[in-house]
Amino acid sequence: MTKQSCLVVGAGDATGGAIARRFAREGFETCIVRRARHIDSLNALAEDIKKEGGSAHAFGADAREEEEIVDLFAKIEKDIAPLGAVIFNIGGNVNFPITEMTSRVYRKVWEMSCFAGFLTGREAARVMLPRGKGTILFTGATASIRGGAGYSAFAGAKHSLRALAQSLARELGPQGIHVAHVIIDGAIDTAYVKERFPERYALREKDGILQPEDIAENYWHLHAQNPSAWTHEMDLRPWMEKMA
Amino acid sequence: MTKQSCLVVGAGDATGGAIARRFAREGFETCIVRRARHIDSLNALAEDIKKEGGSAHAFGADAREEEEIVDLFAKIEKDIAPLGAVIFNIGGNVNFPITEMTSRVYRKVWEMSCFAGFLTGREAARVMLPRGKGTILFTGATASIRGGAGYSAFAGAKHSLRALAQSLARELGPQGIHVAHVIIDGAIDTAYVKERFPERYALREKDGILQPEDIAENYWHLHAQNPSAWTHEMDLRPWMEKMA
Amino acid sequence: MTKQSCLVVGAGDATGGAIARRFAREGFETCIVRRARHIDSLNALAEDIKKEGGSAHAFGADAREEEEIVDLFAKIEKDIAPLGAVIFNIGGNVNFPITEMTSRVYRKVWEMSCFAGFLTGREAARVMLPRGKGTILFTGATASIRGGAGYSAFAGAKHSLRALAQSLARELGPQGIHVAHVIIDGAIDTAYVKERFPERYALREKDGILQPEDIAENYWHLHAQNPSAWTHEMDLRPWMEKMA
Amino acid sequence: MTKQSCLVVGAGDATGGAIARRFAREGFETCIVRRARHIDSLNALAEDIKKEGGSAHAFGADAREEEEIVDLFAKIEKDIAPLGAVIFNIGGNVNFPITEMTSRVYRKVWEMSCFAGFLTGREAARVMLPRGKGTILFTGATASIRGGAGYSAFAGAKHSLRALAQSLARELGPQGIHVAHVIIDGAIDTAYVKERFPERYALREKDGILQPEDIAENYWHLHAQNPSAWTHEMDLRPWMEKMA
Repeated sequence: MTKQSCLVVGAGDATGGAIARRFAREGFETCIVRRARHIDSLNALAEDIKKEGGSAHAFGADAREEEEIVDLFAKIEKDIAPLGAVIFNIGGNVNFPITEMTSRVYRKVWEMSCFAGFLTGREAARVMLPRGKGTILFTGATASIRGGAGYSAFAGAKHSLRALAQSLARELGPQGIHVAHVIIDGAIDTAYVKERFPERYALREKDGILQPEDIAENYWHLHAQNPSAWTHEMDLRPWMEKMA
Repeated sequence: MTKQSCLVVGAGDATGGAIARRFAREGFETCIVRRARHIDSLNALAEDIKKEGGSAHAFGADAREEEEIVDLFAKIEKDIAPLGAVIFNIGGNVNFPITEMTSRVYRKVWEMSCFAGFLTGREAARVMLPRGKGTILFTGATASIRGGAGYSAFAGAKHSLRALAQSLARELGPQGIHVAHVIIDGAIDTAYVKERFPERYALREKDGILQPEDIAENYWHLHAQNPSAWTHEMDLRPWMEKMA
Repeated sequence: MTKQSCLVVGAGDATGGAIARRFAREGFETCIVRRARHIDSLNALAEDIKKEGGSAHAFGADAREEEEIVDLFAKIEKDIAPLGAVIFNIGGNVNFPITEMTSRVYRKVWEMSCFAGFLTGREAARVMLPRGKGTILFTGATASIRGGAGYSAFAGAKHSLRALAQSLARELGPQGIHVAHVIIDGAIDTAYVKERFPERYALREKDGILQPEDIAENYWHLHAQNPSAWTHEMDLRPWMEKMA
Repeated sequence: MTKQSCLVVGAGDATGGAIARRFAREGFETCIVRRARHIDSLNALAEDIKKEGGSAHAFGADAREEEEIVDLFAKIEKDIAPLGAVIFNIGGNVNFPITEMTSRVYRKVWEMSCFAGFLTGREAARVMLPRGKGTILFTGATASIRGGAGYSAFAGAKHSLRALAQSLARELGPQGIHVAHVIIDGAIDTAYVKERFPERYALREKDGILQPEDIAENYWHLHAQNPSAWTHEMDLRPWMEKMA
């Protein structure tokens, strides 16, 4: 197989890291991105991937900035390898009563969780379309399909990202690009949940919270699906999780 | 009944105009808003409403500009009458292949069709909550519930607006504010459709395209619903319209 | 206006009764139906409608029995007046753990809440299609759009009824028949709720439970919609109701 | 690993056969069922599975008959091996104008596509619950989420089956049973499509119709998911398929 690269935008959390690792294990040149100020932790992830025998490239970039994303895609395609898979994994959950929601926060949540996804999806389409192949995956949440008190910003951005995924699936699918949206519902095994929700975290022992490796396995499965049977939308939640 | 006002943001199209007229007929001080450069046509609408015996106030404002919207609500509440109903009726349909969708267009569609709706909804909540009553209505489209090839921007903004409506309904409903989202699906009887889609327009004779007055009747119905049975989501389409 | 009749299948509950009254007030010959063994209470409802100046005809019939429904439509069309509106309002909520759900109950819930709706909808289509007009309304519930633990039978039947309404709307709409589905979510002001859920019932004073008259007003509104703007799906819930 | 069995109800079509094969390859004692009159073709499938090194057991049974299904589960559990996976794969697509839809057909479609699924799901729950593990999969279609002209019976049954899957997922998930619903959308590579839709079938060369093996791979993936990240709903369609 010719060398291919995989890009994970939003590789700073446990899920993004696990997805990067999973694709690296399959031989992808894994490109991981998050804000430049977190470049140290990103380099650490890259080192881990290399220790596991994979290839990893860390990039500091702000996914809301068009130029940075355009440059990033150009650099990967030129210096590393053609992109076979692009994963958009940035979230930005906030909850405020509507009267306290500032326009700054509302806009920022959209820029992070949606506009950055648009830039990523568009650049992915641009490099993949001439080759007629590739996979673009978007991470969603329950807020992707349901609004809730205080969630106008987060649910708004997530609904919009799902509309992007659906629109791209309809446009790019018949041109050979596999676009899918994954709704992840439930606490994930992270330091944050461990500290802030210890009771929840205790469910970890019985698989009661999402393991990033298990999420990653499903992202890999989507990429590996034969084109006769592609999935465009699926959900992932722990077995004990109450379904909203 | 004490005097109340009704605000229609996006009163420049046939639908917005008809809604304003409908509420004016019920005795509301009707406040109509669109971009300042269109103030002449807005004044003409105000004149029409007055000729029909109603009260109308035309405002030139850009609904995407926070200060303008905040000022507008303050002015109406201070100079005219407490807002009993606020309708957000701005759309901004565009269709481009993803590779040709500029970030400028993507952002602008969101600002018009969604961010302006957030500002409008938030300011409405701020004035209505202390009174524990009021109606906030959002105009949606089929793109509110389904993405489509080329529709990443429009469907994105419309999905997001629906998430806003749902979030507000859940938060504000139990505080006495009625929030509803109306999906309008089909051609509307406008000069634009008449010129550009004459065949479609010909269906007008048999009610095959949406009459703005009929849409407005339903907006009024939503406002008039008794609080024991409020609707939060409904659709409107001509009887002959193929349902997507 | 030529005399028209209106049929309410499932007129035994407060909602069905209020719908019958509402259409009677508009001059419809109102035909009310429920199982023959409840004919006394149905006659009482008919008497009430007549006292209010309306026309009412009580029929004992089992809506799950094809022959009885076919005969009923024939009799109404022949002896009373052409059917202008047909409302299907039978529910049958049960909740059992799956292991305790008998096939008898599962089937019975489907027959009452769905199969009877099919028979009603089909017979309505048969008499309305040649005239190219008429309204067919179906009463839904939250279970129409969401399954839940223990609800395999009820949610199954209600999902199926909504699929019927959607299928009929798509087939009959372009032939002039208005088909709509109303999701009613929340406790209704009934003797049952009064006795069994007194705390809930106490919310009645502040419109916290559904008033049958308010539901009926919305059914009438659907019938009265101009064909340029028909609604096919809407929800109704009390203002304080937590949205599922 | 202790021996486990897998039951495919509706193993008569290409999809059911491929699923049986896939689970057999993983070492499951595969039990395949369809109507007794087709036992010969079922025996042929069992022979194929055995030739491939798997274990297969053919049963003639009518899945709409409670006793037959109850007996089948008892026999498998007693004589073969504990059921680790149960797949319900019966469809029954018909399309008739509503006025020509007989109650016999309407009922039969429900019995095949939905009631049989209820019996299968309930019996699966009964044997799996005491063990706190197992997988139950249901095959859906686009009609599971959308009605259509002429589809009142098929969409009704499919909507109802999805409500069953959702209800079971919510009830049984927290008890360790993985329940999922798969929407299969598009032509499948079958003799029927080959004969009746040759143009469509020609797309097979470029993966333009669903390959039963690819469908089966995804059913296996669902069974193999770790419980920290279970999928409850996913779709499968060929890359070129227009999404409804």
